[in-house]
Amino acid sequence: MSVVTSTLPGAARKTTGDALQGALVDLLDLSLVAKQTHWNVIGPRFRSVHLQLDEVVATARTHADTVAERAAAIGVSPDGRAATVAKTSGIDTVTDNWVKDTEVVEILVAALGSVITRMRQRIEATEHPDPVSQDILIGITADLEKFHWMFQAESA
Amino acid sequence: MSVVTSTLPGAARKTTGDALQGALVDLLDLSLVAKQTHWNVIGPRFRSVHLQLDEVVATARTHADTVAERAAAIGVSPDGRAATVAKTSGIDTVTDNWVKDTEVVEILVAALGSVITRMRQRIEATEHPDPVSQDILIGITADLEKFHWMFQAESA
Amino acid sequence: MSVVTSTLPGAARKTTGDALQGALVDLLDLSLVAKQTHWNVIGPRFRSVHLQLDEVVATARTHADTVAERAAAIGVSPDGRAATVAKTSGIDTVTDNWVKDTEVVEILVAALGSVITRMRQRIEATEHPDPVSQDILIGITADLEKFHWMFQAESA
Amino acid sequence: MSVVTSTLPGAARKTTGDALQGALVDLLDLSLVAKQTHWNVIGPRFRSVHLQLDEVVATARTHADTVAERAAAIGVSPDGRAATVAKTSGIDTVTDNWVKDTEVVEILVAALGSVITRMRQRIEATEHPDPVSQDILIGITADLEKFHWMFQAESA
Amino acid sequence: MSVVTSTLPGAARKTTGDALQGALVDLLDLSLVAKQTHWNVIGPRFRSVHLQLDEVVATARTHADTVAERAAAIGVSPDGRAATVAKTSGIDTVTDNWVKDTEVVEILVAALGSVITRMRQRIEATEHPDPVSQDILIGITADLEKFHWMFQAESA
Amino acid sequence: MSVVTSTLPGAARKTTGDALQGALVDLLDLSLVAKQTHWNVIGPRFRSVHLQLDEVVATARTHADTVAERAAAIGVSPDGRAATVAKTSGIDTVTDNWVKDTEVVEILVAALGSVITRMRQRIEATEHPDPVSQDILIGITADLEKFHWMFQAESA
Amino acid sequence: MSVVTSTLPGAARKTTGDALQGALVDLLDLSLVAKQTHWNVIGPRFRSVHLQLDEVVATARTHADTVAERAAAIGVSPDGRAATVAKTSGIDTVTDNWVKDTEVVEILVAALGSVITRMRQRIEATEHPDPVSQDILIGITADLEKFHWMFQAESA
Amino acid sequence: MSVVTSTLPGAARKTTGDALQGALVDLLDLSLVAKQTHWNVIGPRFRSVHLQLDEVVATARTHADTVAERAAAIGVSPDGRAATVAKTSGIDTVTDNWVKDTEVVEILVAALGSVITRMRQRIEATEHPDPVSQDILIGITADLEKFHWMFQAESA
Amino acid sequence: MSVVTSTLPGAARKTTGDALQGALVDLLDLSLVAKQTHWNVIGPRFRSVHLQLDEVVATARTHADTVAERAAAIGVSPDGRAATVAKTSGIDTVTDNWVKDTEVVEILVAALGSVITRMRQRIEATEHPDPVSQDILIGITADLEKFHWMFQAESA
Amino acid sequence: MSVVTSTLPGAARKTTGDALQGALVDLLDLSLVAKQTHWNVIGPRFRSVHLQLDEVVATARTHADTVAERAAAIGVSPDGRAATVAKTSGIDTVTDNWVKDTEVVEILVAALGSVITRMRQRIEATEHPDPVSQDILIGITADLEKFHWMFQAESA
Amino acid sequence: MSVVTSTLPGAARKTTGDALQGALVDLLDLSLVAKQTHWNVIGPRFRSVHLQLDEVVATARTHADTVAERAAAIGVSPDGRAATVAKTSGIDTVTDNWVKDTEVVEILVAALGSVITRMRQRIEATEHPDPVSQDILIGITADLEKFHWMFQAESA
Amino acid sequence: MSVVTSTLPGAARKTTGDALQGALVDLLDLSLVAKQTHWNVIGPRFRSVHLQLDEVVATARTHADTVAERAAAIGVSPDGRAATVAKTSGIDTVTDNWVKDTEVVEILVAALGSVITRMRQRIEATEHPDPVSQDILIGITADLEKFHWMFQAESA
Repeated sequence: MSVVTSTLPGAARKTTGDALQGALVDLLDLSLVAKQTHWNVIGPRFRSVHLQLDEVVATARTHADTVAERAAAIGVSPDGRAATVAKTSGIDTVTDNWVKDTEVVEILVAALGSVITRMRQRIEATEHPDPVSQDILIGITADLEKFHWMFQAESA
Repeated sequence: MSVVTSTLPGAARKTTGDALQGALVDLLDLSLVAKQTHWNVIGPRFRSVHLQLDEVVATARTHADTVAERAAAIGVSPDGRAATVAKTSGIDTVTDNWVKDTEVVEILVAALGSVITRMRQRIEATEHPDPVSQDILIGITADLEKFHWMFQAESA
Repeated sequence: MSVVTSTLPGAARKTTGDALQGALVDLLDLSLVAKQTHWNVIGPRFRSVHLQLDEVVATARTHADTVAERAAAIGVSPDGRAATVAKTSGIDTVTDNWVKDTEVVEILVAALGSVITRMRQRIEATEHPDPVSQDILIGITADLEKFHWMFQAESA
Repeated sequence: MSVVTSTLPGAARKTTGDALQGALVDLLDLSLVAKQTHWNVIGPRFRSVHLQLDEVVATARTHADTVAERAAAIGVSPDGRAATVAKTSGIDTVTDNWVKDTEVVEILVAALGSVITRMRQRIEATEHPDPVSQDILIGITADLEKFHWMFQAESA
Repeated sequence: MSVVTSTLPGAARKTTGDALQGALVDLLDLSLVAKQTHWNVIGPRFRSVHLQLDEVVATARTHADTVAERAAAIGVSPDGRAATVAKTSGIDTVTDNWVKDTEVVEILVAALGSVITRMRQRIEATEHPDPVSQDILIGITADLEKFHWMFQAESA
Repeated sequence: MSVVTSTLPGAARKTTGDALQGALVDLLDLSLVAKQTHWNVIGPRFRSVHLQLDEVVATARTHADTVAERAAAIGVSPDGRAATVAKTSGIDTVTDNWVKDTEVVEILVAALGSVITRMRQRIEATEHPDPVSQDILIGITADLEKFHWMFQAESA
Repeated sequence: MSVVTSTLPGAARKTTGDALQGALVDLLDLSLVAKQTHWNVIGPRFRSVHLQLDEVVATARTHADTVAERAAAIGVSPDGRAATVAKTSGIDTVTDNWVKDTEVVEILVAALGSVITRMRQRIEATEHPDPVSQDILIGITADLEKFHWMFQAESA
Repeated sequence: MSVVTSTLPGAARKTTGDALQGALVDLLDLSLVAKQTHWNVIGPRFRSVHLQLDEVVATARTHADTVAERAAAIGVSPDGRAATVAKTSGIDTVTDNWVKDTEVVEILVAALGSVITRMRQRIEATEHPDPVSQDILIGITADLEKFHWMFQAESA
Repeated sequence: MSVVTSTLPGAARKTTGDALQGALVDLLDLSLVAKQTHWNVIGPRFRSVHLQLDEVVATARTHADTVAERAAAIGVSPDGRAATVAKTSGIDTVTDNWVKDTEVVEILVAALGSVITRMRQRIEATEHPDPVSQDILIGITADLEKFHWMFQAESA
Repeated sequence: MSVVTSTLPGAARKTTGDALQGALVDLLDLSLVAKQTHWNVIGPRFRSVHLQLDEVVATARTHADTVAERAAAIGVSPDGRAATVAKTSGIDTVTDNWVKDTEVVEILVAALGSVITRMRQRIEATEHPDPVSQDILIGITADLEKFHWMFQAESA
Repeated sequence: MSVVTSTLPGAARKTTGDALQGALVDLLDLSLVAKQTHWNVIGPRFRSVHLQLDEVVATARTHADTVAERAAAIGVSPDGRAATVAKTSGIDTVTDNWVKDTEVVEILVAALGSVITRMRQRIEATEHPDPVSQDILIGITADLEKFHWMFQAESA
Repeated sequence: MSVVTSTLPGAARKTTGDALQGALVDLLDLSLVAKQTHWNVIGPRFRSVHLQLDEVVATARTHADTVAERAAAIGVSPDGRAATVAKTSGIDTVTDNWVKDTEVVEILVAALGSVITRMRQRIEATEHPDPVSQDILIGITADLEKFHWMFQAESA
């Protein structure tokens, strides 16, 4: 039973809810990983990378909020607790301690790459059950792919 | 004969124009209904609901303008006159006089619910004739479903 | 019995409430008429008139809110529903479809003219029962007469 | 003898000065009472009432400044000292200690009610001696009556 | 014959138009006198008086625009040309050359005093023919009397 | 070989890259044509058209940047050099020298019309290879069609 | 029994609560005294002192709110009613009527001086029971001592 | 004898002072003429010309202030009184009463033309005595010539 | 070995670093818990609590950044990864799924209460090794105790 | 024959018009070259150079608009069409495809260098015919030389 | 050898570089002198002079930055170190300790006077070698001469 | 004898005054050193370091003002003249001429390091005589240590 009803039929709600829950966890972890490297980056490009990572954080936080509230809007309770993020995120665990700037850039390319792959699967999965959620996932993917290009350009 | 020509062929323009005209009337009525309850709500949650309704008004007004101008952009004259709204809106007539806050929340859940159902039909109807108009209707529906969740959460 | 009491005695409240309810309907209809012509105007002055009409809309909406909340403040429930506007507005029905810019200017001169006449009667009617409401109606009339001059100057 | 002369003749200045001095004290006390309850309110509506009271404070402070400077403008020295407020305010003393939200709303309805009654008398008293001061008192009363409605609507 | 018609009957329009035209000239001259002394003031209070005069200029310019547009709104063409101001202003000619700060303050007290006297007559004259114009003149007078107090307080 | 890799397979990247490169050139040329006419327009509607053209410039520049960065995001180097624009733009060459306002409006209707036709083909072409790029092209087309309506309305 | 519990043990709460209640009354009275002289100051430095006093008012009001809410945060109900201020303030009663600018400066030096002495005692008293409240009182004292210097510098 | 000394020798100060005084009067009259036509313009281009004239007013007022303060800065007391403007302005007297929009545009072309001619003479006259004042006059002329082009383009 | 050296000797750095790392984890978890309940709250106070929780989120995020960067500033690498937060936070795990508003308020009172207790221990621990870090922890505790009061007041 | 007349005699207008037209083309091409490299830069300094280039774009666009409108102001129709830019720009064609950050910096040093050389010739050429246009070219050159220094400093 | 090359030939660069270096030192010292007196001024005009001096500081700092970056732009390394300022400034050493307001005004008149004399020499010296740098020095001198007038007017 | 009295006894004032005077000189020199390197830095990290140094300048200027005004507030005249800074600063003299970016980073690490050491001594010295001044010095040290970390991270 759902507290919040929705105009989506049950199966569509299940598929869409799973896609949104997955996106939520990935985006929350992306925001934590970007903050972790924002604080621990060292090397000559420190300042540039430090600032760039805070833009990733801001984007990831905004989109995490959007997908969580979208889940609620279709009657699915979102789960963004620390343990859930730690267990189900699609991003590889990052190392603790100081990290060289060149390595940070590679970490971000990899993290964004794996989230983008999963987001593209979610775009496909939601096309028929819910074009409204799909449109939100498309917009988020555009932002992630822009960061993906920028970090790649930096390591070229 | 149309004063403003468009790159849409006749049938596509007809289907899309109908969808946009329908959305216009629903959104204008939603803005009037939300204002009506904004002024007449009473009860312990007065201030919270009063403020929330003005957010519905602002959203409905902005989207009404968007769909009316989109209709013009595809060569269809929009009709947002009071009598047209009174006659063709998909929202049930609301009672006059003061209304209890709990009842206002239910009125909004119902009004948003019926507009959303019609918007989802319009999203389907415009997919092939005009993906540009469809994209606008998708964005509007996302906003309406967000309000729909919030008023439901409040009456839970 | 009134939910919201007021420091105005019954007769004063009745007279003032009627004036404010009349003003509310006129202002809501003015906002709808100005939006309708904002969307449907055509002709060489399109852009200038299109922008000018949105200033009328903004002014009419703000003042409609003010008179509705003033009615509530004296214990009278305001009625701004679509059907009430359609039935009791003092503005003549405008034509649907595209309208030439010169004609739009005339429509506005006429609409503003008839609302102003009724507002001046309301200013007189409220002077003794409630100078506070009268002061609000005076301020609104000043704004309407300013638009009235501008549209007349344009058609000179 | 007055340091600041004015275009008002002596009797008019006396009547108007008394009205403004009375309004000053009432508004300063209203700002103190609203702050006192802003800090001490408890209960499920805490946040809503807490925020609403700060709007009353802001309005009361702005208007207190206006009437005090208006008194100076007509050559009458205003008196807004703590002891003067404590002795001559028209608002009943409020209790110290935490207060339930429902009780706070009643306190505000009562406080605003008694200030409004006195303001309406001042509007009458100043009509002939000084329409400029009267206009200021009318504007203040409109704001107070708006708050009066809102707190009443909340306790309905 | 008037290009811009108005809801005011002929005599009312004549009386009100004269009041507004008089106010226009006084306010334009006040703005020029305040600028003249803003540039030519000398003495230990230079900076304080220099800044204060620019507030008078800003207020006078805003109100001049308001009364001129109000005249147009009632169908009366306003006249704010340099020669008209030079010939019909109610303010005494100020001296050219540098002026001591104490003298500047006296000049402003006198200039404001004579404009206020005329404004109070215009408030009386317009009460019956046009309460809308009267309300505008009342608001302007409140501002002028506030400056009048401040310059008097400075010369006390 | 591409410096920036992407999650799009080769063929999808080629199709999408071509669509984005075409859109880039059209939008850059639109911004140059709108500026050219912004500077050279003459006639009674000069000011209105002059301002309107700067809105086209701002929109075209913003969208040019978006599609160029989108191309980079999918691993395709964008080309927006003057010679490329001059050679491959879909907009007809505009005349040099002063241009009458009525003619400017026709130039814009034609320029927007031809860009829109090509954008609609790009929307179709990118639907399957890359819904993310398609969504960007849909949003741009909505803006261009809005301008298209407005310039048509002006020449009606 | 306290409605709001706190992590401070009873004795620490009592000492800290007394310090904060004392600060609250002093700051509220300072805001009233500064407003009283803001309205009643006369003399050549009128404008400068008038503006400076409003900065004292703004600072005193902000800090009064901070200490009152800090008291609530440690479970102590704050008391800022007019009678409490009149009875327990540490500032000497100021005279009514117009006051010369030189005298106003002396009044402020004295008022600030006596509040500062009491604030320094409160800083000492709260060091061990509650370093969080102490830190707030330290910040307030810095602001008060800055004003104290400025008014002294003016009377040098 | 001059109250304000300057680093310019006497002859240079005289030449420069004359140029600045002339510029001051022309700019003040330009601001009055532009306001006069701002209020009295009629015809289909009313709104566009009405708004454009207020930009002329704002520019003329800002530059008038700049040249007056520049005169003071080189030790020359500026004279911007109504009678001085009426007597020594280089702009032809404009007619009173309503004026057609086409005529207003011609009035502005002529007024700007004659001020520009005089400004160019002042640029030449001040080159050697004071390049600092010359630079100010050059900047003002650039603005005036921009308006001159725009009003000409409108009457083409 | 530390990449970033600091003016703190080793033991002081160790104690302070532990306090800051503990604060970092608590604040990050507080931000996640507040977001989780922000999305899942239901009941009549939904809107009020939903908004209030976002203020907690913003505060917790800002302070988390401050303590992490403070750790770096004293040469200690901060660790804010999801797994670290999940494992070492001082806040009890919150339930998944929708939560009633009354229960949410209790969850926040408890979460804030346990973080405050630990923060007070950190304030004591850092007093001697590093008054700079202590001052930061004091400021954070003030904010947390303010929220603690507000949520308690709401459940009173 | 010129549509827009000017106070410059024919020869002066020709010389000045040529200088401004040359500046227009150089600045438009500079804006296109800077955008091209903004999109295609790769390498460790990607982000820094990417952002810096957008400042060049903004400056070049603003100045291009200024010189084009200055040409119009002296009665010369400006030509900023793509083909004109491609043919007559003083900047060497840049390569297509991705470009290393070090190379981008060299491209900008060279492009700015050649534009500056031509701008200095234009400053000389316009000194006598039109000091107003010269002043504009001087200001633009200051901005270009500042960027020239910065890119040189980066490659040092 | 210079790290940053410039389009200025060697002699022109030397002359212009000397002028800019001299201006840099004078402006930095002016900012320090103005701050010194901003902190140490006493007397009845304390507040007015204190605020005015901060405007001098802001202007001097902005212009110091401009001339230093202009020196770099022409390939000359600027020197703004404390010892260089102390040794080569054109401003007389100011006294330490508190200073009376009247004396502060005289100090500023003298300091500005001597900087202006040197700036006028720099304007002459740079006219032929570099009109771009000259234009910057002209603009700075205008600002300094405006302050010079104001402080003189205050001591009149 | 002191012009400005204070609530601090003589010895406490002496100790605190010395600490504040020392801090003032260090912060002023830090602002000059950061500006000097802001202008003279060269190398691939030019832009990043150039911008970062301006943040140091802004912070150092703000804090210099704070400590100077704090000295005044406790009755001690601050001395921030160029010669005093040159003679008593704790920062080593920096080289003139262009400086490589890597060297600039080292200069800043060293300069900040030596200022921080002295600030920590001042924090200790002021704890008992004046906790209000100590709190200000603590806040400044937090900012300096943050910059210290960042420049160290950059050279790692």
